[in-house]
Amino acid sequence: MNPALITELKDKHPLVHNITNYVTVNDCANIILAIGGSPIMADDIDEVEDIISICDSLVLNIGTLNQKTIEAMVLAGKKANSLNKPVILDPVGNGASPLRTKTTNRLLEEVNFAVIRGNISEIKVAASGFGKTRGVDAGLGDALNIKAAAKLAKDFAKTTKSVIAITGETDIISDGNTAYGIKNGHPLMSKITGTGCMCSCLVGCFCGITGNFLEAAATAVTIMGLAGESAQAEVEKNRLGTGSLRIKLIDAVSNMNANILERGMKIELL
Amino acid sequence: MNPALITELKDKHPLVHNITNYVTVNDCANIILAIGGSPIMADDIDEVEDIISICDSLVLNIGTLNQKTIEAMVLAGKKANSLNKPVILDPVGNGASPLRTKTTNRLLEEVNFAVIRGNISEIKVAASGFGKTRGVDAGLGDALNIKAAAKLAKDFAKTTKSVIAITGETDIISDGNTAYGIKNGHPLMSKITGTGCMCSCLVGCFCGITGNFLEAAATAVTIMGLAGESAQAEVEKNRLGTGSLRIKLIDAVSNMNANILERGMKIELL
Amino acid sequence: MNPALITELKDKHPLVHNITNYVTVNDCANIILAIGGSPIMADDIDEVEDIISICDSLVLNIGTLNQKTIEAMVLAGKKANSLNKPVILDPVGNGASPLRTKTTNRLLEEVNFAVIRGNISEIKVAASGFGKTRGVDAGLGDALNIKAAAKLAKDFAKTTKSVIAITGETDIISDGNTAYGIKNGHPLMSKITGTGCMCSCLVGCFCGITGNFLEAAATAVTIMGLAGESAQAEVEKNRLGTGSLRIKLIDAVSNMNANILERGMKIELL
Repeated sequence: MNPALITELKDKHPLVHNITNYVTVNDCANIILAIGGSPIMADDIDEVEDIISICDSLVLNIGTLNQKTIEAMVLAGKKANSLNKPVILDPVGNGASPLRTKTTNRLLEEVNFAVIRGNISEIKVAASGFGKTRGVDAGLGDALNIKAAAKLAKDFAKTTKSVIAITGETDIISDGNTAYGIKNGHPLMSKITGTGCMCSCLVGCFCGITGNFLEAAATAVTIMGLAGESAQAEVEKNRLGTGSLRIKLIDAVSNMNANILERGMKIELL
Repeated sequence: MNPALITELKDKHPLVHNITNYVTVNDCANIILAIGGSPIMADDIDEVEDIISICDSLVLNIGTLNQKTIEAMVLAGKKANSLNKPVILDPVGNGASPLRTKTTNRLLEEVNFAVIRGNISEIKVAASGFGKTRGVDAGLGDALNIKAAAKLAKDFAKTTKSVIAITGETDIISDGNTAYGIKNGHPLMSKITGTGCMCSCLVGCFCGITGNFLEAAATAVTIMGLAGESAQAEVEKNRLGTGSLRIKLIDAVSNMNANILERGMKIELL
Repeated sequence: MNPALITELKDKHPLVHNITNYVTVNDCANIILAIGGSPIMADDIDEVEDIISICDSLVLNIGTLNQKTIEAMVLAGKKANSLNKPVILDPVGNGASPLRTKTTNRLLEEVNFAVIRGNISEIKVAASGFGKTRGVDAGLGDALNIKAAAKLAKDFAKTTKSVIAITGETDIISDGNTAYGIKNGHPLMSKITGTGCMCSCLVGCFCGITGNFLEAAATAVTIMGLAGESAQAEVEKNRLGTGSLRIKLIDAVSNMNANILERGMKIELL
């Protein structure tokens, strides 16, 4: 993981195209701005190819998918591939309905992804083609041990030729060869919506400035975890709650730099 | 009203399916997480039946309805009925356009609701089939006295076999026999969007854990009012504004417990 | 510019119809409430004409346009014109795709606007029919000098018979004859999404209470700038970040009054 990437990102100011859900879209835009990127949200089939053409990366998030946005995602993803621009997949709630599973599978078949980020349950369903996700949180019974999760990530990375990022208590990042375990973050983050979506957006920002998608994903995931720790500490110190947690999290990302990252990161090779 | 329900909710962690508007959807998701539930937002006709099948309750909110989501609401509502899962209706802006009135009437005909929650204007239009709602706030001239509002709630509850929750300066909750008056809350809550929508989501959470929908609705509405009081006090003390009010409100819900509820509730039988 | 307008607005409580994007829509609703208006968001073709009929003004924002909302915008805009209700255009990201440029041009042809508000890049594209917008931020190389921007605003105002508001480091407002330069605001405002959208909503509020659209736009833009300054000062003083900036901005608008406006405004005739 490379803390200097964050400095580079602030210089390069990548433009990130998002086709995403309407639940956390505002948080997604604000987190991209907070880290130093520039967001654009566009999902109409008549403009997605034009929009990705002027962007540095594309994030596809199936959180509130519908027939129209599914087609837009496929179209934008293929166009991004043809232009050699990195595409990130966030298969939100994969397994919660056949439509989500089918859509994830279709996207995996038709688009090459730089990074696929999800919780253990979503990634298991994506990798195995079966299973049930409970809502958009990680399913119970999915708390695999780190070793098993790392193997899942590695294997799925090899199959897809994508970097796989499984976020949870320990985040696992693998490109099929190397696997990182990241122990930043705090359980309270699961009490607000959008931490996963925002994390995928940060991945999109870093993939927009470097071809090393493993480092990009590891850096983004570590930043999200560190920001969550910082936000939780503020909430506890000032006796706030989860409404403030979300605000403090974006604050922390906007104040993040290479030093804070270097000092705070808890990352190891698995 | 039963303060212990909040403890039970945190244990049971109900999964709440929302087909809702894109204005307040993020607040809806966060308030459900704050109280201890788990939200899922899904509105495509190809997945709503699958999603409600794995959920504990369904909240239908017509805040930014369109032809596609109307069909999805009807479909999901019927499926929920067939599975005996409680459905909550929030007829946002009912009366502001014929489309909203027609949609509310159609939903009332095709779906059985556990609870219907709205302001006095929305409920009057729903109950009477006429009238004009001013935007999504309560209409002027709709400030019926409490007695008249309680009668409206009781009568409409009998007609629909639903619990009716009319929220406003005094909240009225009735199942057709019993009627509660709740005097928690603060006028400043009307200066932010989403307090009604969030309240309906809390109702959805409690209906997901108990078959006593009267108690579920009364508990949810009281929690919302108390959280509003707490948020307003913070805003006044720290000379903040309405942006902070919304954050402090979610904070207060995330910190709510049976003790706070028991001490703060201002509820009486009407 | 007329500080007393803000007092008048709080009395008149205008109802503002918004057909807008799903990224910043919650901020839009909350800023309208914060200044003293009442928002309604409705974009289905079957209700937009009914909704504008009960409202005081209409704001069209193309931030996440699609085929359905484009038709709804045209329909609502024409209806508003026929009812003599002011319409505001926010051509978000105009130039970023042919669809956005085409839609902006179509709206300019079919609807008469009271005010058109955008950044220099969006307005240049609208005025000239060519150019490239980088995302939804102002494009690099678009930092015209104030004189040139004022000329652009004046000329485009004459062509369209609309008030043109170009917001940026110096905001330019012109009705074709008079041109104001406003130096309120802070660069940090560009690190959150929605400041432009929210500004257009404030313009919609003021146009809903006065026929003097030049004063309406100048007052709204000044309020937004002043609120941004106040929010930035709070963020700096308390070592917060951009998450808090957004909240403090809405706080500042909710606490704005004629005195603060009078003391803080940095407006001059160009």
